Amino acid sequence: MTEEIFIGKDALTQAQSLLANKAYKTVVVLVDENTFVHCYPLLKSHLPESHHVVQIPSGEENKTLATCEHVWRELTNLHLDRWSLVVNLGGGVLTDLGGFCASLYKRGIRFVNVPTTLLAQVDASVGGKTGIDFMGFKNHLGVFREPVAVLVNPDFLHTLDLRQIKSGYAEIIKHWLIADAEMFKAQRYIGLFTEDWTPLIEHSIKIKSRIVTADPLENDLRKVLNFGHTIGHAVESYFLEKPGQMLLHGEAIAVGMLCEAWLSVQKGLLSPEELDQIETFLHSIYEKVPLQESGLAAISQLCLHDKKNSGATINCTLLERIGMAVYDQPITLQEVQSALRYYQLL
Amino acid sequence: MTEEIFIGKDALTQAQSLLANKAYKTVVVLVDENTFVHCYPLLKSHLPESHHVVQIPSGEENKTLATCEHVWRELTNLHLDRWSLVVNLGGGVLTDLGGFCASLYKRGIRFVNVPTTLLAQVDASVGGKTGIDFMGFKNHLGVFREPVAVLVNPDFLHTLDLRQIKSGYAEIIKHWLIADAEMFKAQRYIGLFTEDWTPLIEHSIKIKSRIVTADPLENDLRKVLNFGHTIGHAVESYFLEKPGQMLLHGEAIAVGMLCEAWLSVQKGLLSPEELDQIETFLHSIYEKVPLQESGLAAISQLCLHDKKNSGATINCTLLERIGMAVYDQPITLQEVQSALRYYQLL
Repeated sequence: MTEEIFIGKDALTQAQSLLANKAYKTVVVLVDENTFVHCYPLLKSHLPESHHVVQIPSGEENKTLATCEHVWRELTNLHLDRWSLVVNLGGGVLTDLGGFCASLYKRGIRFVNVPTTLLAQVDASVGGKTGIDFMGFKNHLGVFREPVAVLVNPDFLHTLDLRQIKSGYAEIIKHWLIADAEMFKAQRYIGLFTEDWTPLIEHSIKIKSRIVTADPLENDLRKVLNFGHTIGHAVESYFLEKPGQMLLHGEAIAVGMLCEAWLSVQKGLLSPEELDQIETFLHSIYEKVPLQESGLAAISQLCLHDKKNSGATINCTLLERIGMAVYDQPITLQEVQSALRYYQLL
Repeated sequence: MTEEIFIGKDALTQAQSLLANKAYKTVVVLVDENTFVHCYPLLKSHLPESHHVVQIPSGEENKTLATCEHVWRELTNLHLDRWSLVVNLGGGVLTDLGGFCASLYKRGIRFVNVPTTLLAQVDASVGGKTGIDFMGFKNHLGVFREPVAVLVNPDFLHTLDLRQIKSGYAEIIKHWLIADAEMFKAQRYIGLFTEDWTPLIEHSIKIKSRIVTADPLENDLRKVLNFGHTIGHAVESYFLEKPGQMLLHGEAIAVGMLCEAWLSVQKGLLSPEELDQIETFLHSIYEKVPLQESGLAAISQLCLHDKKNSGATINCTLLERIGMAVYDQPITLQEVQSALRYYQLL
């Protein structure tokens, strides 16, 4: 199954024949309390009239097995069969969890992702990774399974605050850092400003799709997409346990990208000049995340649970230069801690 | 990934190089309280010394998300990475659940099935279906994913009582009914007696593998394997809720095969003479399951949740003749109830 991707203000209209396909006996839209209010009204008219809505609570803290159980109960009570469709309307948490629920229900029913955050539009909803958190580890349980289609409508971004836009922007920057030096150099003076997100989203999805198509199951090349994520995920998991201090995904990835870019310099890969450029750009957008000394050991321990690791070796994606990443670079716990200290002192 | 199948008294020895492959960082054996005592001692010497054991409670009533959570916690605490191997040592409940747990952990780690019951040896452990029960529905959550290998050692059968042997035999009979009239006719006079199960197991696995290879994701042909299972699963689910009256899988499938063979006659497919032969053979082996009038409606309702259905239509596999099945035959709730009444009156 290959996903079809529709991007632009007409994405929902273009996909209407797909959503209202009579082959689907039942269509269920998965929403959270935010997307139900702000996004569902936009989507509603493109769905068959008889669709159902299932709501889950928003937020990374709800990306759990308990939420999945709720979804599976609802799907079962609606007598959903294998010829049904689940439409995931929300950010990355919702599309990851919704894809996971659909992939396991009766050994897999079809789903469509309608990402409503910039983060989900450029990253989470594309590429066939589904999953939930478990025991505090991000996406610890999951499967690879592609949606039937991804509908990316930039109009949904009007419902976001600046913090969420910045969070998604981190993944856009990541795509430039690993695969497009030209775009990085051109955009770093422009920062967050854009009149129309469509071309930036399109470009980012194109980079990601190219990589994922070459290596869908993350045996090798796809690992470059994890730049910033080895340390970034650990930082995110660490703050997930601290009530009131939770970071958005992109905020944690910004920390991770800085730490891993610094490690790239230590390993003789990236030049200090390019690290400077990355620092300057990221600092112009992201506020510094306060890391306590007491947290450094905990965060580096969390890196041990990264899915890319092999045994006690932490495998990281580093930068050879801006626009070129190398994967499976072993780093030690000590190196992670040194990188976090570098970040602390920035 | 295609599964390798080793059958016979040397299966474990033959697979030793696979089990002790140094590419696996950690090997975990999943057992229940029975296989730990009766089967693990046979397997132990074929595993790398440093392997771990994780135990779950036996029984269909434990084929649940809660048991999976326990397994995932253990795997996480053992720091299992993607280069680890899970060895499922047990009957169909354990191999289904263990395969499911391995397939989701970190988006999928490798697993080997070592089926210890006749049922699991000829059916559950082969073919890449994994799953657990949910809300009383059998295998309601699951994924398709093949084990690296299946190790079928008939020596494990010495640990079984006659009731469990009969349960597995039902799936052997099913394979004859859908695909090998010669074997059915030859074996129906022999019944359960055999000096060595290896050739019967081998023959049954060959039938199943041929069908699964032609249609791994059950889009069409694979559905023939569900003969006896539309009504059989419903009967099994129904008795799952009745403490002390639980049926073994094969016992329920024997009921299902009779009911669905009877329906095949009603639909003008199977001849009454062949139905007679099936009745006589199955009666010589299986005791009659007492169905109360009050249960008939409940059982037929449960058929509505079969994964092969499309909307409110129950899709069933029927027999055209002994040795030849036809799938996607729509049957009504009334027809299911009539079939159950036929069984009641037998």
